[in-house]
Amino acid sequence: MPFVNIKITKDGVTTAQKAKLIEGVTTLLADLLGKNPQSTVVIIDEVDTDNWGIGGETVTSRRHKGK
Amino acid sequence: MPFVNIKITKDGVTTAQKAKLIEGVTTLLADLLGKNPQSTVVIIDEVDTDNWGIGGETVTSRRHKGK
Amino acid sequence: MPFVNIKITKDGVTTAQKAKLIEGVTTLLADLLGKNPQSTVVIIDEVDTDNWGIGGETVTSRRHKGK
Amino acid sequence: MPFVNIKITKDGVTTAQKAKLIEGVTTLLADLLGKNPQSTVVIIDEVDTDNWGIGGETVTSRRHKGK
Amino acid sequence: MPFVNIKITKDGVTTAQKAKLIEGVTTLLADLLGKNPQSTVVIIDEVDTDNWGIGGETVTSRRHKGK
Amino acid sequence: MPFVNIKITKDGVTTAQKAKLIEGVTTLLADLLGKNPQSTVVIIDEVDTDNWGIGGETVTSRRHKGK
Repeated sequence: MPFVNIKITKDGVTTAQKAKLIEGVTTLLADLLGKNPQSTVVIIDEVDTDNWGIGGETVTSRRHKGK
Repeated sequence: MPFVNIKITKDGVTTAQKAKLIEGVTTLLADLLGKNPQSTVVIIDEVDTDNWGIGGETVTSRRHKGK
Repeated sequence: MPFVNIKITKDGVTTAQKAKLIEGVTTLLADLLGKNPQSTVVIIDEVDTDNWGIGGETVTSRRHKGK
Repeated sequence: MPFVNIKITKDGVTTAQKAKLIEGVTTLLADLLGKNPQSTVVIIDEVDTDNWGIGGETVTSRRHKGK
Repeated sequence: MPFVNIKITKDGVTTAQKAKLIEGVTTLLADLLGKNPQSTVVIIDEVDTDNWGIGGETVTSRRHKGK
Repeated sequence: MPFVNIKITKDGVTTAQKAKLIEGVTTLLADLLGKNPQSTVVIIDEVDTDNWGIGGETVTSRRHKGK
């Protein structure tokens, strides 16, 4: 029954990668905590790099600077 | 003053349906808990079926399998 | 399969009221959008009034002022 | 290390405004709570006005009525 | 730089289990998406079973019924 | 009408500090984006250091190591 929300930058992650991520997190929760995989929900949010800030600046800006 | 976030799969929900959902949830919180409808906020997130996982696989994949 | 997160102030809401709220929101999503109630998840967060701000001040402070 | 999520309506906020918002919130957390700006994360969600409800109706509808 | 929020019911999960969950999710994001583990943030919310609903009723109630 | 959620570690932040944080974020959104402070909502979540992971380990563990 766990609910997992994963936020990553929008960077061309493929459908196959998302499917593997969902499978991996669900398996992890079953293995470590005994959670039922059938009712585990995982939602992936892909966020524009203009809308994601770290260190006080956007990821877009950091990448322009080579950070 | 309640804040409600509703996540559903992106499946062609209409503007009229969203309006009814917002009205219904707001009324429910007023009726059951006495919350002031004027300051009740409801945000609906529509999530791509590739980004929503349940049972360890994406909703896209489940639908292809007829689940 | 919808996921709903409801945030309210921590004000002595009873277990019975929470149960009714969960039932009501789940029914609403089934009635309005045809969502399967069996897989609808609702999580209620009760937030301390010191940690909830509106209008630039905490709810605790607003209540002291009779707002 | 704080994590901040800001939800606003999708209203043509510019990249420059988002950058200033990220910088401002990060500085505020450093100044008020001594949080390390280098690890402060800020994510801005821009929400369609059809998907944002307040007072039991969508923001789209409220604007049509001049509220 | 990913941000992960995991919500589980409050069921006596140990500090060691939480540490393994954080480590596992972080490793998964590095392995599958090449994300930098140093800036991956994972937050675990443990939710009271009275506040978690599925199938229109609280987890507390479902457990009493042996579901 | 913005909604802001701030997650910080549970470290004895005072009621006065929270009030200043709520006031500061609300003012920032008014100054930068012209948002109405009266309807700006800010919710602060204080998270146990056992439940917050960064770099693949809990904040509790990092502090023990002097990171």
